[in-house]
Amino acid sequence: MTPTTRDDCLRRDEKDPLAGFRDEFLLPSGTVYLDGNSLGALPAATPGRVARTVEQEWGERLIASWNEAGWWEKPRTLGAGIAPLVGAAPHEVVVGDGTSANLFKALVAALRLNPERHVVLGERGNFPTDLYITEGVSEIMGAVERRVHADNRAALAGALAAGDVAVLLLSHVDYSTGALRDMAEITRLAHANGTLVVWDLCHSAGALPVELASDRADFAVGCTYKYLNAGPGAPAFLFAAERHHAASRQPLTGWHGHARPFDFSAGYAPAEGASRFLSGSQPVVAAAALEASLELWQRVDLGLLREKSLALTDLFIEATRPAGLRLATPREPERRGSQVSLRHPDGYAMVRALIERGVVGDFRAPDILRFGFAPLYLRYADVFDAAQALVEVVRSGEWRDPRFAVATGVT
Amino acid sequence: MTPTTRDDCLRRDEKDPLAGFRDEFLLPSGTVYLDGNSLGALPAATPGRVARTVEQEWGERLIASWNEAGWWEKPRTLGAGIAPLVGAAPHEVVVGDGTSANLFKALVAALRLNPERHVVLGERGNFPTDLYITEGVSEIMGAVERRVHADNRAALAGALAAGDVAVLLLSHVDYSTGALRDMAEITRLAHANGTLVVWDLCHSAGALPVELASDRADFAVGCTYKYLNAGPGAPAFLFAAERHHAASRQPLTGWHGHARPFDFSAGYAPAEGASRFLSGSQPVVAAAALEASLELWQRVDLGLLREKSLALTDLFIEATRPAGLRLATPREPERRGSQVSLRHPDGYAMVRALIERGVVGDFRAPDILRFGFAPLYLRYADVFDAAQALVEVVRSGEWRDPRFAVATGVT
Repeated sequence: MTPTTRDDCLRRDEKDPLAGFRDEFLLPSGTVYLDGNSLGALPAATPGRVARTVEQEWGERLIASWNEAGWWEKPRTLGAGIAPLVGAAPHEVVVGDGTSANLFKALVAALRLNPERHVVLGERGNFPTDLYITEGVSEIMGAVERRVHADNRAALAGALAAGDVAVLLLSHVDYSTGALRDMAEITRLAHANGTLVVWDLCHSAGALPVELASDRADFAVGCTYKYLNAGPGAPAFLFAAERHHAASRQPLTGWHGHARPFDFSAGYAPAEGASRFLSGSQPVVAAAALEASLELWQRVDLGLLREKSLALTDLFIEATRPAGLRLATPREPERRGSQVSLRHPDGYAMVRALIERGVVGDFRAPDILRFGFAPLYLRYADVFDAAQALVEVVRSGEWRDPRFAVATGVT
Repeated sequence: MTPTTRDDCLRRDEKDPLAGFRDEFLLPSGTVYLDGNSLGALPAATPGRVARTVEQEWGERLIASWNEAGWWEKPRTLGAGIAPLVGAAPHEVVVGDGTSANLFKALVAALRLNPERHVVLGERGNFPTDLYITEGVSEIMGAVERRVHADNRAALAGALAAGDVAVLLLSHVDYSTGALRDMAEITRLAHANGTLVVWDLCHSAGALPVELASDRADFAVGCTYKYLNAGPGAPAFLFAAERHHAASRQPLTGWHGHARPFDFSAGYAPAEGASRFLSGSQPVVAAAALEASLELWQRVDLGLLREKSLALTDLFIEATRPAGLRLATPREPERRGSQVSLRHPDGYAMVRALIERGVVGDFRAPDILRFGFAPLYLRYADVFDAAQALVEVVRSGEWRDPRFAVATGVT
């Protein structure tokens, strides 16, 4: 039941089984932060954890910490911490490098596993780095790139039926519209057509339950700095299904992905498991922040998270109706990520005016006002207030103030 | 003049123009740290700088910091901070990804700039990740990998004279022996044979003056966590000579390397300058530590640094002579990095025994006792004491204690 008044919201907050998590984040006062799908908020435990890594592990113990503090194993231990959040086995996930580099590795590995075929199928309107990396991979591998509308099932089925698609790359949740794709069904369809699937989980990991293993995903990548709260530009993760481990070859063959790195042998031999997707040394200080946030995430019931996420997005969709903006996000809960996107040609100015009222969302060209809902630190009352503020911004016309009109750098 | 007594050393320390830098590092007490070539010590300013990024930039300002705190520009601003340390122009260096990924990018770009040729020439005994990445690049590019002894000038000249080498990858300073290669001469020789050169600066950046531009290097990569003190696994850097910018194409085509990333356009178009070598979002918290250390490095006179480095390594070589270990590092100053390596089949146990005495070096298979000398935080007296300790360890036979015999993980 979607609450309809602020009092309803306050009552929902009182009963919210996830309410306690809010105190585990350090949030700026006077702000409703609806941009956790761009950069997640800071967990309260993180500054101390980072300081310990800097001052004690690095400063006092220096190189001894590669063993003592488990630095060498972090790509695996952090991967194992992410695994339950994405429905994978611990040895199927490793942490390291950025999302773009991991996409590169996963796409090349998938192409090599399907050597009779040479088409990489991407989606129109995917996040740019996914498009660009696909271009880069296609060029270097001599593959052909095609794109399809991922939410047009007939088009997707038709593209796969061509029978020449080696690998399909899709975002599980569209970064712009917030549309959630049916991982199980699309993966089944792809496999039935002899195609492997790489899933981009940037907007679903930590936003909703992901079931990579039971949905039979082949590979997946994702970032940790959005819903997983690991900090700006935090290391990304890569999932490789166990059935592909032995045959997978990725080209960023750094020494951390070697079977016996401390032999310092002259030839490369890939490690067992997903470890073969590792390349070089990873930023340990950034990994410390991820470790702090994952400790928190181990205590989260993803079923409750999804329930609250849908309630919050429902609430926002309903409460912003009077603004009269067109909804870009699917109305059906099962097709929605933890995000609400609204369309307006002047969306940029509206988002800026809203930020001035303390409600932080973002804008994505050409016309998307984008709001992310992180159920761990958002209250129903916050979302109600944010929706009211947006309605007032739009109705009042205050967004027409010239100071909101100028686009500046990163948005 | 190499000091020969501890009193000589104390006098040298009193007159040392770099002595003041020692107070800008937080060093563990009771330790002489000769492993700054593996992981540099913690600058005193770093914990505060990291905490500011975590607590204020991330925690309070959240996504606003991509603009306000200059996060988006960090790969360029940090690159500009490294540029004077390696003799490059500010727009020729970018920071991001790891050394392995940057090697991959540089090697692919160099191969593409020399499309008539298909040989990548590496060096026997280079650091494993250089060997393995060369293997990965050769495989994906259909290139042929050859290796040569980099310190055998005739062999190197012969290999280049074959006339089919597209790109030569060399370490400026050998990680194992500490041998310094003549960048100007080798680059000239390579160019005369139609070969481009990628230099690995992991063991020279921050260890001695590097002159990429005047030595006509084509590409270079390096890490920041050794002599540059940016912390474990800190982001790496990549240098691309300006003359190659326009034609260079690297395959990790993430959105940070796009000419107009905020257009979110469907096709990739490489950015101007070295920025085209960027891929995805970088760990900002780790970058903060690099920023803190680079502020310190801007005040370092690299001529004085080199002078002290050679004096320290001379001192260590002379003072450890009574130990009777074979010197692996070139005795000639102009062929020596900021490192002294000694050989003994039981080197592992000797290094462990030495660590127990508070002198931290490391061991590299099969027989190298490796000692790095960071002139910013090492005193002549420290080095004298460390040398004495090594002599005593070897002479006393205390390294034969069985507890020093077992290799454990990372060394």
